[in-house]
Amino acid sequence: MPSLPHALVADVVSRALAEDAPWGDLTCAALVPPSATATAGLVAREAGTFAGGAAVAAAFRLTDAAITVDLLVAEGEAFDAGAALARVTGPAAGVLQAERIALNFAQRLSGIATATAAYVAAVEGTGARITDTRKTTPGLRALERHAVRCGGGHNHRFSLSDAVMVKDNHLAVLLAAGGDLTEALRSVRDRVPHTTSIEVEVDRLDQLEPVLAAGVDVVMLDNFTTDELREGVAQIAQRAVVEASGGITLATVRAIAETGVDVISVGALTHSVRSLDLGLDIDVTP
Amino acid sequence: MPSLPHALVADVVSRALAEDAPWGDLTCAALVPPSATATAGLVAREAGTFAGGAAVAAAFRLTDAAITVDLLVAEGEAFDAGAALARVTGPAAGVLQAERIALNFAQRLSGIATATAAYVAAVEGTGARITDTRKTTPGLRALERHAVRCGGGHNHRFSLSDAVMVKDNHLAVLLAAGGDLTEALRSVRDRVPHTTSIEVEVDRLDQLEPVLAAGVDVVMLDNFTTDELREGVAQIAQRAVVEASGGITLATVRAIAETGVDVISVGALTHSVRSLDLGLDIDVTP
Amino acid sequence: MPSLPHALVADVVSRALAEDAPWGDLTCAALVPPSATATAGLVAREAGTFAGGAAVAAAFRLTDAAITVDLLVAEGEAFDAGAALARVTGPAAGVLQAERIALNFAQRLSGIATATAAYVAAVEGTGARITDTRKTTPGLRALERHAVRCGGGHNHRFSLSDAVMVKDNHLAVLLAAGGDLTEALRSVRDRVPHTTSIEVEVDRLDQLEPVLAAGVDVVMLDNFTTDELREGVAQIAQRAVVEASGGITLATVRAIAETGVDVISVGALTHSVRSLDLGLDIDVTP
Amino acid sequence: MPSLPHALVADVVSRALAEDAPWGDLTCAALVPPSATATAGLVAREAGTFAGGAAVAAAFRLTDAAITVDLLVAEGEAFDAGAALARVTGPAAGVLQAERIALNFAQRLSGIATATAAYVAAVEGTGARITDTRKTTPGLRALERHAVRCGGGHNHRFSLSDAVMVKDNHLAVLLAAGGDLTEALRSVRDRVPHTTSIEVEVDRLDQLEPVLAAGVDVVMLDNFTTDELREGVAQIAQRAVVEASGGITLATVRAIAETGVDVISVGALTHSVRSLDLGLDIDVTP
Amino acid sequence: MPSLPHALVADVVSRALAEDAPWGDLTCAALVPPSATATAGLVAREAGTFAGGAAVAAAFRLTDAAITVDLLVAEGEAFDAGAALARVTGPAAGVLQAERIALNFAQRLSGIATATAAYVAAVEGTGARITDTRKTTPGLRALERHAVRCGGGHNHRFSLSDAVMVKDNHLAVLLAAGGDLTEALRSVRDRVPHTTSIEVEVDRLDQLEPVLAAGVDVVMLDNFTTDELREGVAQIAQRAVVEASGGITLATVRAIAETGVDVISVGALTHSVRSLDLGLDIDVTP
Amino acid sequence: MPSLPHALVADVVSRALAEDAPWGDLTCAALVPPSATATAGLVAREAGTFAGGAAVAAAFRLTDAAITVDLLVAEGEAFDAGAALARVTGPAAGVLQAERIALNFAQRLSGIATATAAYVAAVEGTGARITDTRKTTPGLRALERHAVRCGGGHNHRFSLSDAVMVKDNHLAVLLAAGGDLTEALRSVRDRVPHTTSIEVEVDRLDQLEPVLAAGVDVVMLDNFTTDELREGVAQIAQRAVVEASGGITLATVRAIAETGVDVISVGALTHSVRSLDLGLDIDVTP
Repeated sequence: MPSLPHALVADVVSRALAEDAPWGDLTCAALVPPSATATAGLVAREAGTFAGGAAVAAAFRLTDAAITVDLLVAEGEAFDAGAALARVTGPAAGVLQAERIALNFAQRLSGIATATAAYVAAVEGTGARITDTRKTTPGLRALERHAVRCGGGHNHRFSLSDAVMVKDNHLAVLLAAGGDLTEALRSVRDRVPHTTSIEVEVDRLDQLEPVLAAGVDVVMLDNFTTDELREGVAQIAQRAVVEASGGITLATVRAIAETGVDVISVGALTHSVRSLDLGLDIDVTP
Repeated sequence: MPSLPHALVADVVSRALAEDAPWGDLTCAALVPPSATATAGLVAREAGTFAGGAAVAAAFRLTDAAITVDLLVAEGEAFDAGAALARVTGPAAGVLQAERIALNFAQRLSGIATATAAYVAAVEGTGARITDTRKTTPGLRALERHAVRCGGGHNHRFSLSDAVMVKDNHLAVLLAAGGDLTEALRSVRDRVPHTTSIEVEVDRLDQLEPVLAAGVDVVMLDNFTTDELREGVAQIAQRAVVEASGGITLATVRAIAETGVDVISVGALTHSVRSLDLGLDIDVTP
Repeated sequence: MPSLPHALVADVVSRALAEDAPWGDLTCAALVPPSATATAGLVAREAGTFAGGAAVAAAFRLTDAAITVDLLVAEGEAFDAGAALARVTGPAAGVLQAERIALNFAQRLSGIATATAAYVAAVEGTGARITDTRKTTPGLRALERHAVRCGGGHNHRFSLSDAVMVKDNHLAVLLAAGGDLTEALRSVRDRVPHTTSIEVEVDRLDQLEPVLAAGVDVVMLDNFTTDELREGVAQIAQRAVVEASGGITLATVRAIAETGVDVISVGALTHSVRSLDLGLDIDVTP
Repeated sequence: MPSLPHALVADVVSRALAEDAPWGDLTCAALVPPSATATAGLVAREAGTFAGGAAVAAAFRLTDAAITVDLLVAEGEAFDAGAALARVTGPAAGVLQAERIALNFAQRLSGIATATAAYVAAVEGTGARITDTRKTTPGLRALERHAVRCGGGHNHRFSLSDAVMVKDNHLAVLLAAGGDLTEALRSVRDRVPHTTSIEVEVDRLDQLEPVLAAGVDVVMLDNFTTDELREGVAQIAQRAVVEASGGITLATVRAIAETGVDVISVGALTHSVRSLDLGLDIDVTP
Repeated sequence: MPSLPHALVADVVSRALAEDAPWGDLTCAALVPPSATATAGLVAREAGTFAGGAAVAAAFRLTDAAITVDLLVAEGEAFDAGAALARVTGPAAGVLQAERIALNFAQRLSGIATATAAYVAAVEGTGARITDTRKTTPGLRALERHAVRCGGGHNHRFSLSDAVMVKDNHLAVLLAAGGDLTEALRSVRDRVPHTTSIEVEVDRLDQLEPVLAAGVDVVMLDNFTTDELREGVAQIAQRAVVEASGGITLATVRAIAETGVDVISVGALTHSVRSLDLGLDIDVTP
Repeated sequence: MPSLPHALVADVVSRALAEDAPWGDLTCAALVPPSATATAGLVAREAGTFAGGAAVAAAFRLTDAAITVDLLVAEGEAFDAGAALARVTGPAAGVLQAERIALNFAQRLSGIATATAAYVAAVEGTGARITDTRKTTPGLRALERHAVRCGGGHNHRFSLSDAVMVKDNHLAVLLAAGGDLTEALRSVRDRVPHTTSIEVEVDRLDQLEPVLAAGVDVVMLDNFTTDELREGVAQIAQRAVVEASGGITLATVRAIAETGVDVISVGALTHSVRSLDLGLDIDVTP
């Protein structure tokens, strides 16, 4: 499982901590003696797939470097309700102060991993991969993509800067300019790095041939029915990777995967996340 | 409707844009002539309550200052499916590049506003206010709280730094240290600013009297049944603001409001957001 | 004594160090051999109350992590002239480079703590608390408020974002708009978090009743004579916390406290600070 | 009068605004209608010398770009009590929100300019220049040095990076290492940029000759009596610029200047600032 | 010619300006009257290809927004010695202060564009593209890659995050781990986004078949002779894009291109830049 | 050899790492097992003078704190081709990920040190010092100046903020304003810190006397022939430090030094750097 750059995690978690306690924790300052210590368990209140351990550890350790965090499950590991996911030990004030931020990260990221795992399980055996989209939470893209990988999913391009994706609106530009589609797509290849792949979104089957003629790497069939997808897969015939997209749900994903598409991208993995129910059980020693 | 500090919006949106196009938009650079212009409509694919106009405007204008954005509905305004929410005009490359980020903000924030509005409608007439919690998305708290206000909800404390909230784990510290609860809570009042209100979380009715004896401002009744809530409200008898919390859903919120509590805090408003279905329809002029 | 978030201290001290040595210390680079070590004592040249230990330690340690700093007096502890406040040991170049910044923090913060302690001593036994205001040094508010607490004072609200304070100019808006004062203040309560307290500044006694009728939490009596303050306290009669403000000095604060007010806010604690006379005595070993 | 880099002013003021209203102004949001406008006058409650106009303008304009600020006195201009210093016009909420930060800058910086002007007046005709030191407020050095210039004073070196200043502790290193002072100072000249001047602090007259023999640019006579200063000036005999330093006050500065020294550095100009009494008178139009 | 994100340019140029004038320009402050204006011409002292216009404009305008900059040649346009490249008009102090930074950017980036253009011209008609590498100046990669495009070159992958490039050291890991090379490379495809292309560096011809068997997108032939390159091209036979790399100079690039490789990557384009000789001729009006 | 502030090095290197791997290293993540470790040697492929050890260490350690870096040659030390410069040990993925950035710093900085050493050797025995200019790479000035010192060179002023340098364009302002040159330069002395030295650029010998009459510290003779330089040195006759500048190369520097000038500033040291050929030889243990 590829690990996240720790500087990136530290930066995101530091911002979250500063947002949640810009000038300290009034409650702990007024109530918790500096000498009090605590041990806490990050516990699953429901079953799921874990993601976010690095953020959990950072939340506690950036609050107080004297806190130690032992992660008890690996990134991407499935767990049952009641499972202990991490153990946290150290000054009580720091543990209590960081609790909510640690949970906010762990619940959201494990929620994404768990949802992804459900999609991945649904398409098992079909050979289709489940990917995220750019519909991620602003500021959390790297973490959320990591969570998708934890759930057994794959990532799509990270950003506008690392792959070409020609969508309907871009095609509209081409057509409005009176250009020839195939020629235009070939000229894209001439202008981008030789390491950059080119994906084109297609809304109708009759758009396929001019796109394929340009030698693109991936074709996205957007909002196709399963019949249309099947027809598209046949027509493309290995000339490009085939991606299905558009309003796909857990209920429909298996049927889509069985059409033979290579990739199914699911915006809901990150744009409509249900936080997983995790909690922190704390024992305090005065 | 209180407006968000524009520097804060600009900062959050700038980060999102940099995350999505760290070194530019390969597709637009390769395909869209600099002279092409576009007009685009932000359109509702489903009904809801609007929030996020400032972020939408910032996403386009920080990408290209030559783009103009006219917001057609106000923050907090309800709209029907098909409604035009904003009109965007300017260089096509910039409009296409900023599209996804503008949508990511608008869909998430309008999703929160819409969900909040549903909760607010459900308790109409009871006098209870619906509030958010600290279970917000890391880095987006100010924007998400704004979206809750757009939906007719209220905000809870922003952070650990602006109000005291004594939770079960804090009480555990006090008890472990052998202190007297009432006395301990009084000493909190002595130590925090006179403008800081003190809220205490209570898990059982028998904890109420020692808490109220300390003169706290708000009592949170955590995970109480409606019967227990009703009993709690009666026992508190206006001596403190009463907040209900814990696993409250749209299905249960009316019954809880009818117990007479003053405040109902709902973590799901922000921790489990469904993005509202909004889209950008683009007309390009070469 | 609530401790400051260490990330906040590190950020402020890092900026100060970069400001004072943007590209290194020319003198030490040219004169001090890397192998030279030093022990230094932070010494009081006059009596006072200590604040700023965390900033002192950060100044040395962020300059060279090989320096160790032992704080010999606690935050908020009183000391006599000649007292040793801290001991610093490590590479001489780093100790000499960080000296001025460490002193700048310690002298200013201990100056604030010492001044605060004088005000607090002056009102001893009256039950009035001494607080700071928002008249702090730009960029140093959290540190200066901490210093006020070290001197035995209390903090007022931190910022415009954590409590409502309706001042004369806000009231002017209300009146200009033709609104009813009591009604307007009640509507504020309806719009802010239930954890937010509301303070109103009053310039004349006849403004009291409409303000109190709205159920505000704190009334600030601005620039009142002691007779007027006494009358105000009587009239308010525990219906709100009473704060006195406006040009209060060490000479007048006792008389004001004896009027029975609860809170006395003193802008001079932070807007007109005399740095305490502290020095660093250094022994160098070549 | 050299103007401050505007990016530097904008950075410092932005931090101050964010510190004072991290997530907006609760009071204005709840009370001030967005349509209300205000005109405000920055008014002197006492006489002084003005500094900080750029920060005042930035405070208002960074809060709301729709606010206009007209500065009515120039940087460094003297004014009487009652004088109008600036006029501010725009949306009332923004004017009220920025008021305190604008005042915090203007009062502190004008306080420094006014104090400096008093020292400068005290030495008039002697040819001595008054300078600041590195005892500035962390984070505000550039602004405070500008204020010193506004008061007719001069600046000392900005930082450890732009001039060599050999102090007693550095000399202690040299002596501990058994080096020859003159030789050591000459070797400094060999190692620093040819544009870097070298100043050496001297505590006793008998240290002068070995220092002068090295060809240093400036000699600082630290904590000398006026008799010793006179003797030092005579002995140095134009071989170096002569600076007096150490506990100099407005009461003693004239006598020191009359000893013939070239430069008098005064830490109190910035380490113990009394904010000048300025206020903002606001007229609001609903 | 793809334009650079303006926020990225502004960020890099702002840092450069702050580095060059951390607290203002002493010379202009002391010598140039604020009322003086200047017109300046950016002039070529030698022929070349232009790049860096956006940075030039930003350098002046971020120093003083009152300065206007007219670019007289387009990015990527060739010019002769003596050509006027840009015209700058505005307050003299700002023009003089920004001059060096504007030149530093323009000279370096035009130097890169000019060198690239020479390589591109050398391979004209062969079909080979010239690309940069990751041997760019720390902090300037996006600008330097833009300059390469201005010279008619192409970009390689931007970073470690946007394409897979398996080098000799990575292969060593695989072999040390006892893995099968073809299988290992196939497993990479399974783990990275479907939009990510995979390039493998090959040091000897006998490594080609196992690499090609894995279906990689690009093969880099590292430090091959032209004979070996020709043999490699024949053997690869369109199964992958062929890149030549390793110590290629202007003297050798044509022969390499004529071997039939698709891509020639040249580290020297950015790691050993000769700044182009440009100057700023200034006319000042007092 | 003065060491660089470590916070400055960490900041520059962190940016470079983030630029090179914004969201991780795809190749290592897909290929290198987390348990694999590596030892690597930084090796010289050609002879030179070393600079950049701190940046090399930071590149590896900021990527993974578990990596240890032993520097085998000191900053400023000469080495032969084949020499081992540093040894790096730790997790293989981190070593491979940081390799390019470590090399980018070491090659550029050692390239500058090596070039500087050649100039310094060329003038040996003449007494002239070789200095850099402000023609440094944007963002890397402190590191590049350090490299110049490593090569035995000296630094010129760091920035516009730490010394006065009156160039032809500034003189043009003075003359356009009708001022007297000598008088104008004297007034500069009156306005800048007493620690600030004043350098004036002179294009013709007849400009010398009015400049020297003002008592400036340094005179720069710009683009003078060696005969003119000799004449200028004679005429200045120790009244100021003499700097030669303008298009000086390794071929011409000796002759210039022999004219008796004190300082020779060479823009090419930093504006046209050839990276030194260094490599990283890696042994991986699975």
